[in-house]
Amino acid sequence: MIRSVENGARLELDTAVKIPNASAFLWNKKMMVHMNCRGYAVAQFMQPEPAKYAHAPNLEAKTFMQPEQPYYTHHPGRFFYVKDEETDRLFSAPYAPAKTPLDSFVFSAGKSDILWKIEHDGLFIEMCLSLPTNEALEQWSFTVKNNSPKTRKISMYPYFPVGYMSWMNQSGQYDANLNAIICSSITPYQKYREYDKIKTLKDKTFLLADTIPTSWEVNQAAFEGDGGLHYPTGITGIELLKGDALYETPACVFQYREELQPGQEKTYRFLFGPAKDETEISDIKNRYFIERIEDKVTGFEKTKREYDDYIAKGKGCLQIKTPDAALDNFVNNWLPRQIYYHGETNRLSTDPQTRNYLQDNMGTGYIQKEVARQAYIKALCQQEESGAMPDGILIHEDAVLKYINQVPHTDHCVWLPICLKAYLDETNDYGLLQEIIPYKGNRKSATVSEHINLAMLWLYKTRDKRGLSYIEQGDWCDPMNMVGPKGIGVSGWLTMASSYAFKTWAQICINNNTEDIAKDFLIKAEELNSSINEHLWDGDRYARGITDDNVVFGVKKDPEGRIFLNTQSWALLSGSANVDKSKKIIDTVKNELESPYGVEMLAPSFTKMREDIGRVTQKFPGSAENGAVYNHAAAFYIFGLYEVGYTEKAFEILRRMIPGPDEKDLIQRGQLPVFVPNYYRGAYRQFPRTAGRSSQLFNTGAAPWLYRCLIDGLFGLRGDVDGLHINPRLPKEWNRAEAIREFRGATFKVNIQRESGISKTRVTVDDSLLQEQVIKDIQPRIYRVDIRIP
Amino acid sequence: MIRSVENGARLELDTAVKIPNASAFLWNKKMMVHMNCRGYAVAQFMQPEPAKYAHAPNLEAKTFMQPEQPYYTHHPGRFFYVKDEETDRLFSAPYAPAKTPLDSFVFSAGKSDILWKIEHDGLFIEMCLSLPTNEALEQWSFTVKNNSPKTRKISMYPYFPVGYMSWMNQSGQYDANLNAIICSSITPYQKYREYDKIKTLKDKTFLLADTIPTSWEVNQAAFEGDGGLHYPTGITGIELLKGDALYETPACVFQYREELQPGQEKTYRFLFGPAKDETEISDIKNRYFIERIEDKVTGFEKTKREYDDYIAKGKGCLQIKTPDAALDNFVNNWLPRQIYYHGETNRLSTDPQTRNYLQDNMGTGYIQKEVARQAYIKALCQQEESGAMPDGILIHEDAVLKYINQVPHTDHCVWLPICLKAYLDETNDYGLLQEIIPYKGNRKSATVSEHINLAMLWLYKTRDKRGLSYIEQGDWCDPMNMVGPKGIGVSGWLTMASSYAFKTWAQICINNNTEDIAKDFLIKAEELNSSINEHLWDGDRYARGITDDNVVFGVKKDPEGRIFLNTQSWALLSGSANVDKSKKIIDTVKNELESPYGVEMLAPSFTKMREDIGRVTQKFPGSAENGAVYNHAAAFYIFGLYEVGYTEKAFEILRRMIPGPDEKDLIQRGQLPVFVPNYYRGAYRQFPRTAGRSSQLFNTGAAPWLYRCLIDGLFGLRGDVDGLHINPRLPKEWNRAEAIREFRGATFKVNIQRESGISKTRVTVDDSLLQEQVIKDIQPRIYRVDIRIP
Repeated sequence: MIRSVENGARLELDTAVKIPNASAFLWNKKMMVHMNCRGYAVAQFMQPEPAKYAHAPNLEAKTFMQPEQPYYTHHPGRFFYVKDEETDRLFSAPYAPAKTPLDSFVFSAGKSDILWKIEHDGLFIEMCLSLPTNEALEQWSFTVKNNSPKTRKISMYPYFPVGYMSWMNQSGQYDANLNAIICSSITPYQKYREYDKIKTLKDKTFLLADTIPTSWEVNQAAFEGDGGLHYPTGITGIELLKGDALYETPACVFQYREELQPGQEKTYRFLFGPAKDETEISDIKNRYFIERIEDKVTGFEKTKREYDDYIAKGKGCLQIKTPDAALDNFVNNWLPRQIYYHGETNRLSTDPQTRNYLQDNMGTGYIQKEVARQAYIKALCQQEESGAMPDGILIHEDAVLKYINQVPHTDHCVWLPICLKAYLDETNDYGLLQEIIPYKGNRKSATVSEHINLAMLWLYKTRDKRGLSYIEQGDWCDPMNMVGPKGIGVSGWLTMASSYAFKTWAQICINNNTEDIAKDFLIKAEELNSSINEHLWDGDRYARGITDDNVVFGVKKDPEGRIFLNTQSWALLSGSANVDKSKKIIDTVKNELESPYGVEMLAPSFTKMREDIGRVTQKFPGSAENGAVYNHAAAFYIFGLYEVGYTEKAFEILRRMIPGPDEKDLIQRGQLPVFVPNYYRGAYRQFPRTAGRSSQLFNTGAAPWLYRCLIDGLFGLRGDVDGLHINPRLPKEWNRAEAIREFRGATFKVNIQRESGISKTRVTVDDSLLQEQVIKDIQPRIYRVDIRIP
Repeated sequence: MIRSVENGARLELDTAVKIPNASAFLWNKKMMVHMNCRGYAVAQFMQPEPAKYAHAPNLEAKTFMQPEQPYYTHHPGRFFYVKDEETDRLFSAPYAPAKTPLDSFVFSAGKSDILWKIEHDGLFIEMCLSLPTNEALEQWSFTVKNNSPKTRKISMYPYFPVGYMSWMNQSGQYDANLNAIICSSITPYQKYREYDKIKTLKDKTFLLADTIPTSWEVNQAAFEGDGGLHYPTGITGIELLKGDALYETPACVFQYREELQPGQEKTYRFLFGPAKDETEISDIKNRYFIERIEDKVTGFEKTKREYDDYIAKGKGCLQIKTPDAALDNFVNNWLPRQIYYHGETNRLSTDPQTRNYLQDNMGTGYIQKEVARQAYIKALCQQEESGAMPDGILIHEDAVLKYINQVPHTDHCVWLPICLKAYLDETNDYGLLQEIIPYKGNRKSATVSEHINLAMLWLYKTRDKRGLSYIEQGDWCDPMNMVGPKGIGVSGWLTMASSYAFKTWAQICINNNTEDIAKDFLIKAEELNSSINEHLWDGDRYARGITDDNVVFGVKKDPEGRIFLNTQSWALLSGSANVDKSKKIIDTVKNELESPYGVEMLAPSFTKMREDIGRVTQKFPGSAENGAVYNHAAAFYIFGLYEVGYTEKAFEILRRMIPGPDEKDLIQRGQLPVFVPNYYRGAYRQFPRTAGRSSQLFNTGAAPWLYRCLIDGLFGLRGDVDGLHINPRLPKEWNRAEAIREFRGATFKVNIQRESGISKTRVTVDDSLLQEQVIKDIQPRIYRVDIRIP
């Protein structure tokens, strides 16, 4: 059903039916397109806020990206109808909207393109989507080949619906000069002051073709008619009627009538995207479709190659070869790509949540160190002089805090040392700590180190008399808006996360030769741990928090939400849990939270509102924070398991984060292993039918943490101030594994092998045995590292 | 194609194809349902803001009602699939989503129900929608009759899609106890404080059936499958699979398998609507489906009759019989119903725009005098102590000013005397003027008369040194937000409207025995008229206004928007235009604004932004205020034409406001003559293909003005302080007409006849000739009025 080809650089799916929502995504610096195997698409570009150039057929709400996006017949998509003019048989590529069963189907997700190969009724179709590097634009090619023994008379119709653009003004026409269909609109607004913003927007959507069409249609209703999208009335005629859209829903439809000899093939190329005006479209035409002699190829091909190069830059620092080929493929190809995407696009947001921004850049630190460095600085420049971090980081001059960033959360400070540690481990760039940068408002400046110190003190300070951290209206991404709105309720997780942040900061301070600060924060961390154990230990689990009304929750006696994963994971990380408690909580998590699809956020999922916890309890049970396998949280748990040495359990859960390889699992998750989604449905014990289903959202803090678990945990190739620490923790069913680790300019070719008879790990570097498991004094060369494990 | 039956109480359409968006609407005090002949539906209920219980299949924007709502396969609707189990042939009633051509089709719009009669494949289907009077609930009955000579095995599937209810939480199950499908959701919110609001909302949608189904399906995707809505996969099985929706898009689908003997018929009844919880649904089931012995009928039938009675209360005060039967039908049946709807629902808004609220209640004054009276008082209680009227009237305790009500408009005061005059003419309730009521904030009170006086003085004051009225960011419903945002630009229309308001107020003052005030305002009106003539006369038209930068616009030299209808209509009303100028502007309107579908708002429609006029120029040319046949404005013009004696022209344009009767016109407008829409597409000279197309919006100030034109103008049966004034202005092609006029408790049976040889109108009442054309001293009895016109 799926197979990886081209050494893992592509992943192919051979069915449009079994995983109907299987998808892949492409992005560049200006846009993102999430393409479904059937042809449905969700695409956004930034101007500076996310905008669409292909819309739903009705007035669609502007909102953040939603999980489990439902696709329906008229959903935006990119489709090609193919009609045999002699038989009137019709099918559509890639599959929707006609949904005719095809003779063969391949959806092939590449790193820098998405393509389909389809055979039906003696015709072979290849259609391919790629993006330019720095422009909001889709490049499409469509090839048809006559694989039958006779001449075929066919008509092909690219059908790119544009949807309901605007109630103020929408229309569309074919422009013969440009050989483009241009759909125009005006973004609705009502207030006088908003005009200055909307007048700069790219409110046109165009489909530019390199080949003059036989005919066209721009009026969606006229094209579809009463035939419906499974057999549009427009297609029943010999030629499309060349209609326009006048305050009517437009669509971009061309018709190409061709007679193809046996074996003959033809290729058409199209550009689809948003534009400000005709001048811009004309410019695009010139740049992509007009061949320049000096280039020898059109801009279309040239841009495609540039984009290949751009994507290739998002290479990870770890290549692996293990007995688990599907894992290798995911780790070598797709996970670093997903991390790269986060760093390049900041989730198509102008005000990323502070915790997302910092954690996404934790991932970026493995891939684009300078980008990560600048992100830490940008975030800290928006820190309050009190030490508090804002709810979101404004990364565009026009940005404002939106959506959930208007709800006060108290955890943002903790991510500073935690994420920075990964960056420093990787780069050894302790110089960053000495950079002098301002606080918000530019009145005061301090070193990065002082900034973070202040953040830690803010965390230390904003605790109650029990020593537990106030939660206000939420922490992490938990929408627990009713635990602490009165300013009394506290968060067990945040207390633990603060403790772990203090310990991590202490470690950085030791490396940075400020041991007195380190000592102070180690004491503070223990103080927090002791409060945690005094107030939140519940026999076999840690409570999630204590409400404004002094009700401890996330405990055994709760009928729903009796255990929350985060307070178990971070008890391991913070050291709140001793060996005995660690064992107990790991057992409890196994019994109450583990599922075949990973470890759930909480259980049982809330089925009704708890008014002293809040919004999380109102989400559908098993979705998102209400008990999904929320991979971001699952990765924390895995990281914690590696931290305390439960390495078998860690790998077991890590592996469940990736769909497949077996077909049943892939179908249940409904997603290809080309990204880790933000969640799989949980509530496995309550709703087994839907458990495991992917949210299909590839914006997630899971990606960097999963990568960190692989580097620091599974492969144990973590950097530190003194060099590369070696501590692989292969699962017992693996006898060997290989890895190539790029680190501080050197390449480490690592071979790990289980050896019977030894009791501790032996590391040999270029044939000389290491005394400590650290490779120091790293030079820019290739190291051969041989590791023997018991 | 269409015919009116039951003495005009129903209007029938015999095609689902020629007028695909033909529709009718029902309402009650809690909701509105706009039903398309094909089964698509837009329904809203109030809680207190408008909400939906059947949604689009994607996240739909919450917005005000939109013109030309596009329907598409997955649009909300109420459908019944019928499958012949022996042939597997499928069709859907009323037409969508299968869109199988039917043997016969009738869409029958009634005043208090909407029904379809369909014959296909030997089966006769009758389906009927009605509402209760005071509950957000749809009552559906579905009857199938075997009209074929053999026994038929069929399955019927009511398919009521519920759509994408919420990204926070949505699900659906069949409840066997209630015999209902119940879909549950939680309205998304993010801010802690919003919870108190959302927790009271009716977030469930249910379909209750009176008959136990063979099977059911609640999972929309499972029902539809890859078959598509034209042949859902779920229907291909013998029985539906009894699936549920778990954070999946729900739908309400039942299956009834039946064997029908020749001639046998069966009826099913359903209730569809929103609810807070199961208890409410259970209560509804008891009230509607459980027969009470004392009632002899179920609540279902009883409620239907109560609703008939409720709708019957919305009777007009004018019944006509003319040579134009289609006009009679519209005026006798549909227009007063539409006016009644406005008064009862306030356009399903909690903050109606002040001008809408006053004008809608001008209509209500003809139908429910006490309701209108209270509305004037409610509006005036929200007047500022400065005399200014707010942009919207808050009619619910939780209401706030929304959408366009946040944009400052300057015209609200003018509607007070203008609308009140119609109310006083009708009721002679001059006592209202003496009522003492507060200003906004309750600090100060005054009589209604003083309130209005203050409003008039506010209008007089807020003018520039040329004597023209400031426009700020708009007046009337014109989105001219950039004419006067600096506080300099002025409105020609508002100056005229103020003048007309002063004159009207003066007339009221004369009737109210405050002649000194009257005299003062008559002088002020002339002052305004003189400013208008000095600054805005452009040879054959009046300019629309003067911008902040002193640019006169709406004049001959403008390439677009060279004439605006409103400044012509109100020049007639205000008396700014003398006889000569009146003739000139009426000629200009004829040449530049008249179209076969009525008279346009402005011309040529703007095809690009004019930054010194604003948003109106950005709407699509020919749509809405940018040059549509905006019926509200057209009615002003007609009213003005009657005012100055251009009665032939008045009728000519009035008649074009109603679709039909000829088929070509009906198809072009795409609407049944059961309401007057807010606009027909204009820009006839620019875009003839779309000109005439109805917006399908039945919320419009056109309705009360059209009624006033019929009463005061065409039939000349206007009340005044001294009695009923008689002045019919029949078009020359009519030789006679009859009318029944209900007025101040009396019934006037009016016969109007053209008589050759007379030079002026002669009025005989109960056989005695009137000296003046006024019937005074009206008693509660029947009057026979015979009118002979030259």
